[in-house]
This record gives sequence, structure tokens and C-alpha cells, in this order.
Amino acid sequence: MALMAASTSSSSPSTKLPLSVYKYSSYSYSYVPENVLNDNPSDQSSRWSSDSNNPPQYLMLKLERPAIVESIKFGKYEKTHVCNLKKFKVYGGLTEDHLIEILDSGLKNDHIPESFPVRNTIDGNNFPCRYVKIMPIQAWGPSFNFSIWSVELHGVDDWHRVKACMNWYNTYREREAIRLCLKHFRQRHYMEAFQELSKKTKVSLEHPLLTELHDSLVLRGEYEKCEDVVRRACQEGLFDQYISQQDYKPIWTPIQPVSNNKEPHSDTRPGMRGGHQMCIDVNSETIYLFGGWDGNVDLADFWAYHVPTHEWSCLSKNAEEDGGPSARSCHKMCLDPERKQIFALGRYLDPSMRSATILKCDFYMYDIMSERWTLITDDTHSMGGPQLIFDHQMAIDTDQQTIYIFGGRVLASPTEAERNNQDQQFSGLFSFHVPTNTWTKLLDDCAQLRSRIGHSMLFHPVKRVLYIFAGQRAKEYLNDFLAYHVDTGTIEVVSDGTNKESCQAGFTQRATIDPDLNEIHVLSGLSRDKDKRDNVKNSFWVYEINRDKWSCIYKNENTGQQYWIKMQHIEPVPRFAHQLVYDHKRKKHYLFGGNPGKDSLPKMRLDDFWSLQLLRPSQKFLLRKCCFLIRKYHFLELACSDSCAAMSFLQTQVYGTIDKEDKEECEEFQLLTTNLFKAYAAGDTSLMEGETPEYFSQRTELFDKLASFFPETMTQPKGNLIDMIPIDG
Amino acid sequence: MALMAASTSSSSPSTKLPLSVYKYSSYSYSYVPENVLNDNPSDQSSRWSSDSNNPPQYLMLKLERPAIVESIKFGKYEKTHVCNLKKFKVYGGLTEDHLIEILDSGLKNDHIPESFPVRNTIDGNNFPCRYVKIMPIQAWGPSFNFSIWSVELHGVDDWHRVKACMNWYNTYREREAIRLCLKHFRQRHYMEAFQELSKKTKVSLEHPLLTELHDSLVLRGEYEKCEDVVRRACQEGLFDQYISQQDYKPIWTPIQPVSNNKEPHSDTRPGMRGGHQMCIDVNSETIYLFGGWDGNVDLADFWAYHVPTHEWSCLSKNAEEDGGPSARSCHKMCLDPERKQIFALGRYLDPSMRSATILKCDFYMYDIMSERWTLITDDTHSMGGPQLIFDHQMAIDTDQQTIYIFGGRVLASPTEAERNNQDQQFSGLFSFHVPTNTWTKLLDDCAQLRSRIGHSMLFHPVKRVLYIFAGQRAKEYLNDFLAYHVDTGTIEVVSDGTNKESCQAGFTQRATIDPDLNEIHVLSGLSRDKDKRDNVKNSFWVYEINRDKWSCIYKNENTGQQYWIKMQHIEPVPRFAHQLVYDHKRKKHYLFGGNPGKDSLPKMRLDDFWSLQLLRPSQKFLLRKCCFLIRKYHFLELACSDSCAAMSFLQTQVYGTIDKEDKEECEEFQLLTTNLFKAYAAGDTSLMEGETPEYFSQRTELFDKLASFFPETMTQPKGNLIDMIPIDG
Repeated sequence: MALMAASTSSSSPSTKLPLSVYKYSSYSYSYVPENVLNDNPSDQSSRWSSDSNNPPQYLMLKLERPAIVESIKFGKYEKTHVCNLKKFKVYGGLTEDHLIEILDSGLKNDHIPESFPVRNTIDGNNFPCRYVKIMPIQAWGPSFNFSIWSVELHGVDDWHRVKACMNWYNTYREREAIRLCLKHFRQRHYMEAFQELSKKTKVSLEHPLLTELHDSLVLRGEYEKCEDVVRRACQEGLFDQYISQQDYKPIWTPIQPVSNNKEPHSDTRPGMRGGHQMCIDVNSETIYLFGGWDGNVDLADFWAYHVPTHEWSCLSKNAEEDGGPSARSCHKMCLDPERKQIFALGRYLDPSMRSATILKCDFYMYDIMSERWTLITDDTHSMGGPQLIFDHQMAIDTDQQTIYIFGGRVLASPTEAERNNQDQQFSGLFSFHVPTNTWTKLLDDCAQLRSRIGHSMLFHPVKRVLYIFAGQRAKEYLNDFLAYHVDTGTIEVVSDGTNKESCQAGFTQRATIDPDLNEIHVLSGLSRDKDKRDNVKNSFWVYEINRDKWSCIYKNENTGQQYWIKMQHIEPVPRFAHQLVYDHKRKKHYLFGGNPGKDSLPKMRLDDFWSLQLLRPSQKFLLRKCCFLIRKYHFLELACSDSCAAMSFLQTQVYGTIDKEDKEECEEFQLLTTNLFKAYAAGDTSLMEGETPEYFSQRTELFDKLASFFPETMTQPKGNLIDMIPIDG
Repeated sequence: MALMAASTSSSSPSTKLPLSVYKYSSYSYSYVPENVLNDNPSDQSSRWSSDSNNPPQYLMLKLERPAIVESIKFGKYEKTHVCNLKKFKVYGGLTEDHLIEILDSGLKNDHIPESFPVRNTIDGNNFPCRYVKIMPIQAWGPSFNFSIWSVELHGVDDWHRVKACMNWYNTYREREAIRLCLKHFRQRHYMEAFQELSKKTKVSLEHPLLTELHDSLVLRGEYEKCEDVVRRACQEGLFDQYISQQDYKPIWTPIQPVSNNKEPHSDTRPGMRGGHQMCIDVNSETIYLFGGWDGNVDLADFWAYHVPTHEWSCLSKNAEEDGGPSARSCHKMCLDPERKQIFALGRYLDPSMRSATILKCDFYMYDIMSERWTLITDDTHSMGGPQLIFDHQMAIDTDQQTIYIFGGRVLASPTEAERNNQDQQFSGLFSFHVPTNTWTKLLDDCAQLRSRIGHSMLFHPVKRVLYIFAGQRAKEYLNDFLAYHVDTGTIEVVSDGTNKESCQAGFTQRATIDPDLNEIHVLSGLSRDKDKRDNVKNSFWVYEINRDKWSCIYKNENTGQQYWIKMQHIEPVPRFAHQLVYDHKRKKHYLFGGNPGKDSLPKMRLDDFWSLQLLRPSQKFLLRKCCFLIRKYHFLELACSDSCAAMSFLQTQVYGTIDKEDKEECEEFQLLTTNLFKAYAAGDTSLMEGETPEYFSQRTELFDKLASFFPETMTQPKGNLIDMIPIDG
């Protein structure tokens, strides 16, 4: 489900839309389609059921009046049911033959009705539907027929509003149709038809700058002027949208901190460890690191790394001695950059150390300015907060000075665990309001928000949402992706984990959020579970929140020891129990330490320190590419008429634009010479009526390539008319 | 699978096309997509396997060179396998984004490789593919992943041939694109753009007759002239294609035969019966009827009905006494209209009568001209033909004087059945060559052509194919549809019965074939099996052989006794054990007798006699409809400017074209008057630049309606440009 909520103007209230069943693929026995119009959760027979699961199966509803559909609600049977729809799509439109996809989702196999916002905008404008088609794709029971128990559509059918949308939608389609024609005619050099159509419809094909580019390039062959236009466009930032849509490339840099002390692994920088915690103050560009496990003992040292000066400073050799938390690992920390405060909560305790007397969860605050630790409480549970937990998550809402804590395993004494009659107990969702020192339990471990360990939780300060995903619960790896709206307490299922296109995060991923770019970054770690077939060792994923889209920008599946020794200064070896923090202002990640999971050296921990930048092609890079393209086509045109001039142009002008380090580009350049010796009809430029010159289609090809770098709102349509011709002969 | 074979010119031989795997949705473990390039039936791991059965899953192949693909061949594992594809689709095209469906089929779950012809023509011309995408839809095991063991593509990749097809295909798409533009421009009154585009491209939108219609109607509003054009078109047969695509309407007529004898149910016409046989001599228009079961005893009377004179004549009161077959039911007959011969074979015997001595299958021929029966043999089995069978099928190839007999249950004596250790034995496919009195066993009961009872079998004398479908085998109802090519002995699976859109014929359907129209007609009967939930009682289906398309043209689901008493002279009551014959020259069916399946009167049989005609709208009917349309629009236009003239036009001209018996039309007519009182801006016909007059879009609407009656090859494209605009904002 996309995170973008369906939007309609708030002026018209959403109502239940009257509808009827219009068409269907099949039904079995008495499970007629009309049953979906009634919601009888206790009646086993009150449903539509297809007569097989052979695709395509569908149910088409017709609204009594055209409406802007905002959501679709599915009722269910009072128990789980194998015929429930695990996966389905919904299409909508004004005519039954021209529907667009408005939802791609699935139902939980339970008895709780579910409601989904549906897509109802094109280009930011609402479009109306008359027909809504539900297409079951998968049932929960793999060999069972599809059943739908009840369906409601909600939205706006106020005629005044709908009519306006219909007018807009018709105008939109009309305009897009004309733009496709204009593009086609210009490509084919039907200039008179192009002009008459432009004149009559007043529809513009593109931004005037692109028309200028087209005319100088395609009509007049002024290649130099064309370079000018491109240079100007690049300078004006017109290529930035294109650049922002390009894949990131990850650049890892090992950080060698400045140190007066030449002895390695001395006290001037933190030693090897895993299960430590880090947080970053993006204002002062300082990274804080506390505790961890060095392979033998828990640590209590506390460090700060100042990015601009590349310097580590040790704030405490033993924080406990300075009034701070004792040595520990698997705790969590968060930082309030406004008030310069660091909070720390939770820890792992070896089973041998779990006696009831010490199973309290202490909670510390470190004040950066005064360099002092404060024990907020020695037992959060007694204050209404969580019990002693580890492998939980912690995130701070700086504006509201509220800390959220979710998940983690509750450390209970053996006797207590026995009393509760359960192996593992997981902690729910808590909030802590800093100014009033108030704990609130928001949710227990429950079906809606299943607790877990080793998950990721990130707070988006603008959307005011906690993103929670992945993690483990006993032997189960969770793949769901949830959004908890902190102000309303509602939970949104971003993904139920069945979508294989998303990051298959396990237990050891590390995630960060960029609230400006609306991106979540996930570095997958080494799987702790040796039995889990996990081919991907190091991979980096980006989730674009607004587009609800995952992309893997980097994968390294190498596992050989030799390989990673060779790579030790180039890329971090796969690991777990490491830490990753993100400076969203400078768009830089920092990674420190962890457990490389070496069978031969189980106690080995790492102390390497890396920065990671995600880079996209620069303006400069793109501009050079454009110039190379332009000169390449210029050369190809020259080569047809004047081999000599072309040769010289190739050697100077084209050569000047290539990146000599780029092997592929150099090869492409070398291949260009072969065009010098192709036979062409001598420079006869007179043309028959209706014929387009040879160079025209080549120049058009170049123009289309260059146009693709401009924002879509400025350019001719992407599609081509001839690709839309239906083939049904 | 369509019956149309893929076609390529015979000049270029079909070869195995070199290809590689280009893209795929997923794979599991080592079952990588590239495995499909090797055919290793004995290697369990030599296959592509998706990592789930979540749709969409696909495998995209790329041909080394563009080619005209003729067939796709799937290799399989040496045993049955749950991951085999029960259902899949194949798409092909020159670019990966624009593929068209070239196959919709499924694999048998066995070890035999299967090859399928694929669609490779548009408008009768070959088109080339570079990419071929296989999309699994269903596996044989419902919860299993999809596997493909090996794939080969066969076709022509000779560049000379392929290039020609590519040129044609590009020109085709270009032309269709321009035609869509021209249609759109004309509809929107962009006349200058329309003219410039026509002039430049020389593409014609439609046949000149339609342009004439457009100009006189839309541009000049000459409604009378427009009626003339339509009348001319209708007379020239231009509407015949449209008419042939309209649904049939079934017209049942009870036949009351002429009789001098006023006593009902006397000897002047055949009495009540089921399980009798009928055949028709289409040359003399005579129907022959023999035998059956009257509810108490088997009958041996032999009758002829002469259609033109409506007269029954009794040829034998007891055929056995005249040297013909003994009293019997569940036998089969066929007629050679050239040589005026009737053949009869098989019978049902009550278990009590099955002693080994009489279990022989006699075979009779009746010579119509000499009115004499001949016993061809008293034991077909001893001549190499079938054993004694019933509920088989028999069809004659008149040209080759060969009779085909397929299926039926073998009547064995109790001892014989025991010896064979099987309950039911089914008979295979036999042919009998009349001139040489030679029997040939073509196929035993086998997996490829499973024998059965109560099926339909029809011979197509031009295609030289036996169509075999439906029937029952012990408790299994068969839904497959096979074509046996009599000259090659090959069996084609027209449908495996999984397509729910086809006629769900059971055991009691009666089918006929029209070799001129290439249609198969099926009248579904009453289900014998009371337990089978069979809602449809009377239904009539038409299968268009060349389009591989079933349509249900009539359904009557009434079951009440009162209803059918009321209907007794209007439509035959549902039944089984009846007979249906078809006069394909006069397009008339004849139905006689059968068992109405009355629980209260189990011995009741019927003696009603019906004719059935499938009618489509006539030329005259369509022409009147067109005139009504034209005058209706004319009236609407008049009503805007001159209410008085409009009123008088409505009362005379429009009224003159309606069918006063047609309720709907009369209502539509009455509603038209409301247009007289609608307020319109007074007759200001001056228009702003770029504006289209109100009447223009109305006239265009009428034009589009009229154009839809002309053959598609003559008219503007059916589609509309704006419906092709992709929505992806």
C-alpha cells in the first residue's frame, strides 16, 4: 500500500457510495456476487465465491452515480477463512473498458474489516469512477476459490464536485492526446499538420526552452547553439529532477582518526566491540559511542568523535564511575540535538546474572554541555515504563520531547519466567515525555503491532510517524513494515512483507531516515542464523517513502576471506552487532565496529570506522555526457557529407568531451571512427515531396535523448503514439 | 488454443531460434532461469523455478535476432510434476515494453514435451518478435511454485523475410496511428489539421462511401441524402458482416404434421419414445426415425418425415420383419445423402439379456431408393470393428464414404466382464470404409483420446476433422474438446475443459454442425444425474470454429411444472434421450421426443416434434433501425431551432420508422417529445473561432453509430485516441 493517502478536498464529506454488482467472472452455487452488498460476518454463506481460482477472476461494481472514490472497505467472516484474499488489485474508471489500477493490496486472514485508501488522483487532480473492478489474485488457502464477504466504497458523489473532476479529467485526456499527436507529427516532419493542430487546440507540447532546443537542433542543425541551451538548462537546475531519479552509488571511506599517539589501539580511540551504541548530534557534527561487548567483557567507556577535526575524545573510561550507566551491551541510546541530551536504556544480561533483585531497568541521561550523567530512574517499570529489556528500539521526537521505545525482549528472572509460563516475553510500545518525566504505555505486544527484537524503528519528524519494520520474534523473521502515527495512535500497514521487491531485512539490518529527502536507508548485515540461506551479504537499500518504493542500490555477495582481506580499506566486511548513524544534514552515514561472525575467531570484534556517502551523478557529469552526445551526433552527420572535416571534428571536439577513465565511453569513441568509412549517397540534399531528410530522424533521436534529462512537466510526453495502437486484428 | 494455425509463408523453413534469458521475476535456489535453455528430462534440478507463486511471475527470453516465431516447445521432467504449468500465457514483440499475447494455453502434467503454434499475424501479415515473455498463471499443484524445464522457440529468422515483416509492421502501426488521429480530429472539428495530415501522409481514414456519408450528414446536415447512402449500402450487402456478428435468436415452432386420420397418436406418426435415432437427408428434406424405448419396450418402427409436405410416413411397423434391425434403443444412425443410404449400429441391452451368445454387434444399411434393409454383418467385432456398444457416436464422411464410430460402452456378458476384471469397458475409434466393407481400428481407448459415452461427435467435411467433446466416463463428466484430423490421425486439444466460458455440456447435450458457417450448435439437455447441481435447464450454445469462441444464445432456467405446461406450444420442455438433427442447407433444426425426467411418471416419454431456427436481424430490420436513428437525430436538431416543424416531423417522419410492436422503441419515441420543450439559445448559428457548433457533436455521434454497421475494413478505427492515453501520473 502506498503511503500517500488518498486525497480529496475537505469541503465534501466522504460517504458510503450506493452501488450494485455489474459483472463478475463466475460464482459457485449460492455464493452469488450480490452477497457482497450485505455485511453478515456470522453467516458463512453471505459472500461471493468464485467457482475456481483460475485467473482472471473479478467482480465489477457499478456506482449509482459517478464519484470520487476515497476508500474501499472489506468486511469479513467472523473467523479466519482460507478463501480470504491474500492479494488483490482494484481498478476504477468511468467506462468499464478503461480502468486504471487504484489499489494493490491484500487482506489479513482474520475477522477484522479492513479499509484501504485508493488512488484517486492523476497529476494531483481527482478523477471520478463509475466502475470499480476487484480482481482477486491469491487466496490465503492456495487451492481455494476466492471469496469476498462484503465491500463498501466510500467517497464523494456530490455532483457539483464530481462534475468539476470529470471536466478536468476529460480536458486532461484531450490535452494529452493532442500532445501525443504533436510529438508524433514533429518526429515525422508533418509540419503543416503540427502547426494547424497547435493553432487550433492551443495545446503546447513542451516548455518554450525545449522548443528552442528542437528548432535549433532538429530544424537548423545548429549543434553549438544546442550545447549552449543544454548548458543553460543545467545551470538553471533543470536537470536536478533527472539527477534525483538516478540510482545512488555508495562511496565507502575508511576514517583514520587524527591521533597524536602513534600506538595503534591505544586509549585515543574506541577499541574493538559489538553491541555498542552510537548517536549523532547533527548540529555539532559529533558522534557519541557508549559500551558494547569486546568479546570477553561488557564495556562502559564513553567516546565522542568530532567529524570536522577527525578527533576521538574519551569522555569516560568508565561511565559508571562518573555517575553514568554500568558496563553493558545491547542497550539503546538516542540524542536530542536541541537540548544536547543523550538518553540510554536497557541492556543484555547473561542468564547466569539474572536474579530477581537486579532485574530493574535503569534509565540515564547525559547532558552534553555540562558533561554530566543523571540517573532518571533505577526502575522504569515502577514508573509505568518498560521492564528490563534488550534489543529494543528507541527514537526521539525532538519537537515534543518525547522518546518512543518499542519491542525488545523482557529479561525476567528464571522464577519469574516460570510464573508467567512463557519462554520469551516481548515488550510493547512506550512513550516517555522528558519535561514531565512521564511514562505512558501506548500498546502491549498485540496482533496489530507485534513486538519483536532486532527490528528497526525510525521517527519522521515532519510526517510524525514511527516506521517499524523487520526483526525477529522467537524463530520467526518478520518482514512487515508498519507506520505508527504518533498523534493519532493509528497503525498503517505499509507492507505485509509478501512483496518480494522490498528489502528482505532480517535481524541484523541497520536503518536510518532522511526526513528531508523522505528516504529510509537500510544496510543489511550478516545473518546470525547460519542455517538461513541468505545469499546477500552486504546490501544497501533505499526506501522512498512518498513513492512507496524500495530499491537496492548496492549488493556484494562475496563471502571469501581472501576477498575481504583485500577489500579491508575499500569496503567494510559484512557483520552484525555493529552501529550505523546518519547525519541527514550532510547526507553522511557512519559505521563502527561489530561482529564479523568468524567461525574460527568467535570472540573477534571489529573497531573499524567508516563513512558512507550515497552519490548521484553530478550536474557537471551530466553536462559532459550531454556534450558528448551532441558532438557524437554532430560527427555522425558530418561523416555523411565530409569525411575529412568529420575526422578532424572527432579528434578534437568529440575527444574533448569523453572521460578517458571511462572504459565504455572510450570504446564507444573508438567505434565512432568506423562511421567515417560508410558509404553514403553524396550530399544530395534535395528532397522529394513528403520525404524526410536522413539527418532529420537522427537529430530527432538526439533531441528525444536530451529532452529526457529535463523535468517531465516541461517536455513532450514520454510515450509514443504508435506504441499505443491496439493490436487485435 | 485457437484452431487457426500459425501461418508463415512456406518459402522459409522453420528453425530452432537462438535465444537467451533476458529477464525474470524471481528464482529459487539453484533453479536459475538459464536452466530452461537445456533439456534434461532426467535431471530434477534442470529447470527454472520461481521463488513463489505470487503473481506476476515471468520469464523473458530474448532472441538473438528478430524472428517470426511459429511455435513454442516446452520440455518436461521425466515424471509428472506438481510445478508444471497448468495455465500460462506467452507474449511477444520487438521491444520489451510492447508485447502482445501470442498464446494462452497450458501443459499436460506428464513427461511428453509439448509444442504450441503461436499467433504471429496481424491482419493476415506476419509480425516479428525479439522478446518472448512466458507468464505462468497456474501450476498443477495449487500451492507450488512454477517450474519450466525447457523452452525452445521455432520460427523463421532469415533476415530477408524478417525485414519485410518489420517494414510491414512499422507501416501498419504508423498507418493505424494516423487513422486514429484523423478520426479524432474530424470528431473534434479540427478540419485544417485533418486536411494537412491526410495530404501529407496519404493515409485514408475510411472507404469513400463513408466519407460521403460523413460529409453529407455531419458537414452539411443532409439527412435525407444520408438515408439514401445507408439504403444503398444495405442493398449492396455492406451490412451483412455486421448482421453476421449479431447474436442469434432461437425460434422454436411446434410441428403439427398433416394427417388425414383425425385420431391422435394413431399410426400416422411416431409415438412417444426416448433413446430413438434420427437422421436427415438434406437433399430430399426427409427426416428418418428408427426405434427407441417407449417407457415399457424397445421399438422397431421406422418412419420418414417429409418437411415440405409436413407428412410422416411409416416405412416399417417392425423393421426386423422387413429384414432390418430388431427393436432397440441407444443405437446410432447416420445417412449418406449422396448414395441415399442409412447405417445403423449398436444397441442397449438390459443386463438380464446379456448372455454371451447374443452379444454381437449387428450392422445394417437401409437403401432409401429401393426401400430395403441389408445386414452388412451380424458381428462387427469379428470383422475388425467395434464390439456390441451403446451410447457411442457415429459420423459419416460422405466424400470418402467412410463412417467413424467412437466411444460407447462395450456390452459384455457377465462372465466376460469378470474375465476382463473391469466394470466398464469403453470402445475406441473405428472407421468403416463402405465401398470395400473394411473396418479399421484407429485408436484404442487411450489417454490422448479417452473413450466415453453420451458425448458428441461431428464431422466437418471441409476441414476434414472429427470434433469430439463432452460425455461421461464412469462417474467422471468430461469437458474437453478435441479435434481428430481424419487424414493425418493427429489429435488437437481445442480446449482442455478448464475454460469456464465454454459450454459446460454434460451427458445429455445434442450437437450439430454447420460446415458452411463453421459453427457447432449445442442444445443442453436435462441432467440425468439428480445430484449434479445443474441450474441451467434449457440452453443453446454456438461455437464459432474459426474464432474458437463459444456463445450462449439462449437460456431458460425455469423448472416449475406449471411453467412448462403453459409453454408446451412455445418451447420444448427440458429432456434427455431426445434426438436433434440439422438441415444445414436450410439452417433448421428438428427435435423429436425424449424423456422429460418426471419423477412422478418415470415411464413417461415424449412424442412432440419441433423445428428450431436461429435468426439474426434482417437487412430490412437493420435498415429500418438506421432510418429511425437518422430521423431521430434530425428531429433533435430541428427541435433546437423550430419546435413547430420538429413536432410535425416527429409525428410523421419519425413515427413512420418505428416498429409499433416494439415496446422499447415506442417508449423511446414517446420520450422524444420532451425535447420539444427544452430551452435552447435561439437560432444563433454564428460561432466563435475554434468553437464547434452544438449540432456538430450530435451529428458526429450519429455518424459513428451508423459507421458501426459497416464492415470494419471500410470504416474509421473502432478505438478512440483519448482512450489510449496512458495514466501514470
